[in-house]
Amino acid sequence: MTERVLALQPLTAEQRAQLEQTGAEIVTAADWENQAPITAIFGWDHEVGPAALMAPNNQVKWIQTVSAGIDYLPLDWIKAHNVQVTNASGVYSPSIAESTIGYLLYFIRGFNEAVKNQAGHFWQQPERNDLGLLASQKVVIYGTGSIGQAIAKLLNGFGNQPYGVNRSGHPVDGFKDTVSLADDHTLLKDADAVINAMPATSATVHYFDDAFFKQLDGLNVFINVGRGKSVDQQALMNALLYQNVLHAALDVFEEEPLDKNSRLWDYPNVLITPHQTGFAKENTKPVLDIFKKNLTSWVADGSLPVNLTDVALGY
Amino acid sequence: MTERVLALQPLTAEQRAQLEQTGAEIVTAADWENQAPITAIFGWDHEVGPAALMAPNNQVKWIQTVSAGIDYLPLDWIKAHNVQVTNASGVYSPSIAESTIGYLLYFIRGFNEAVKNQAGHFWQQPERNDLGLLASQKVVIYGTGSIGQAIAKLLNGFGNQPYGVNRSGHPVDGFKDTVSLADDHTLLKDADAVINAMPATSATVHYFDDAFFKQLDGLNVFINVGRGKSVDQQALMNALLYQNVLHAALDVFEEEPLDKNSRLWDYPNVLITPHQTGFAKENTKPVLDIFKKNLTSWVADGSLPVNLTDVALGY
Repeated sequence: MTERVLALQPLTAEQRAQLEQTGAEIVTAADWENQAPITAIFGWDHEVGPAALMAPNNQVKWIQTVSAGIDYLPLDWIKAHNVQVTNASGVYSPSIAESTIGYLLYFIRGFNEAVKNQAGHFWQQPERNDLGLLASQKVVIYGTGSIGQAIAKLLNGFGNQPYGVNRSGHPVDGFKDTVSLADDHTLLKDADAVINAMPATSATVHYFDDAFFKQLDGLNVFINVGRGKSVDQQALMNALLYQNVLHAALDVFEEEPLDKNSRLWDYPNVLITPHQTGFAKENTKPVLDIFKKNLTSWVADGSLPVNLTDVALGY
Repeated sequence: MTERVLALQPLTAEQRAQLEQTGAEIVTAADWENQAPITAIFGWDHEVGPAALMAPNNQVKWIQTVSAGIDYLPLDWIKAHNVQVTNASGVYSPSIAESTIGYLLYFIRGFNEAVKNQAGHFWQQPERNDLGLLASQKVVIYGTGSIGQAIAKLLNGFGNQPYGVNRSGHPVDGFKDTVSLADDHTLLKDADAVINAMPATSATVHYFDDAFFKQLDGLNVFINVGRGKSVDQQALMNALLYQNVLHAALDVFEEEPLDKNSRLWDYPNVLITPHQTGFAKENTKPVLDIFKKNLTSWVADGSLPVNLTDVALGY
């Protein structure tokens, strides 16, 4: 049977031709209802995705996402129907890591105040001792997978050895030390920066809650480049008001887009970017490369060699 | 004769006691007129500095600056009177380099637009192809001394090998290639970022002038962390208006503080910081370490082993 892959991600004619060299047929979103049975999906769309996945005359057995996270997919249905999911883990890690270093430097090197002073034409030098070096900050990274490791690697280039938090506390290259989630309090007392780079799973939803923030005493920078759901946003806002946390850089939010009326927009000690850390023109090709490798194997022998996720774990 | 060093830089009682262990006497700005002959000066002050240096009953033979640049000293007088000058070159390079990486990421990772959108509560994602990776930018650094090398080293950690421009074009570690100032046009055509990290000398005043900027065709980022005088500010403003240069981050200016009425403050594609890249609490100790080493030798045998400048060259 010819594999029919519904592409919910834009493809150029050339890209499509290359993918069809595998022997698969690429179906577009405009035409999917006339192309049953669809057997795989590339990318996702909140309307077409579920409709095509669950259509009775389709036989979807594989989804290749263009994202690292898979939490927005209907995972219960997917698990019940033995659909395999491969993701684009790794592709976005360098750009997410670069943005994360940018967030750290934005606050540590005094850009946040400079931007506000510039708007008022104020030449206002900080106190010399108010600024520091990224090299000497104690950075704690939650999540030591592809993203966490990419951040650690860049920090190492600054002479900074970060600490890591993961499920078991297993050691990871590039980290000075790693502890389990249960032991994270041992790292937090004198931490300067906390970075969330965990996937969204049942174990991480609202991990950063009121109790978490209340144990902090003037943490310099909190950064979320993982998932919005990992942070109780109201608890973070309280922590920023009560100075448990002094600054935050947030790329992901509990609800996206962030509500136009959210008071978070106006916090002077918060930098908001609209879920863009994964964006870079350099990222398009590697996503297609992963898809093509998987598609080639899928057509040949039904295997998926790159980035097969564990749907039960959620990543 | 006891060496009498006028300290124009604040010292704690403990620091002063440590320095006096060398056998020298530390004189404060409040008391300098009663302490002739002063034989050396630590730090500088635009009023007390020249007065103490040129007072007929003083015999100043050495100035230890707390800065890397020495261009603000009365160099002609200093040269004519055989005063030696040691500087704090190297101390500020890590913090200047960290700020420079922050400037690059601020523009390359889309923070500049995000900050403006945040002020208006706009959730406005950039086009995926509008953002890039620092890893793949072509960066050209003017000045391959301590600051330029520190920037190159951090860039190397991002997988980026920058190009360098120096007087002779001699090769320098950490740079992919270096050319002489006369040949810099060979590097500029497809450059993404230009960074000025040159000292202020007669050869570098207004090096970045109208002719320089007009050869650029949409340079993504221009950064000045060297000296304000190296840039013709009006020419840069024109280049930003005519898109020869798309963005600029400026820490130093032709006149400081930057005039409250300068139109530069309002350029939406410019980040202004008030001459602060050298600030970091970690920098205080190394400056004193340099001074103490030099003072110890100076008292013992009149030599200055650390960071002796060539006053004729100006650095």
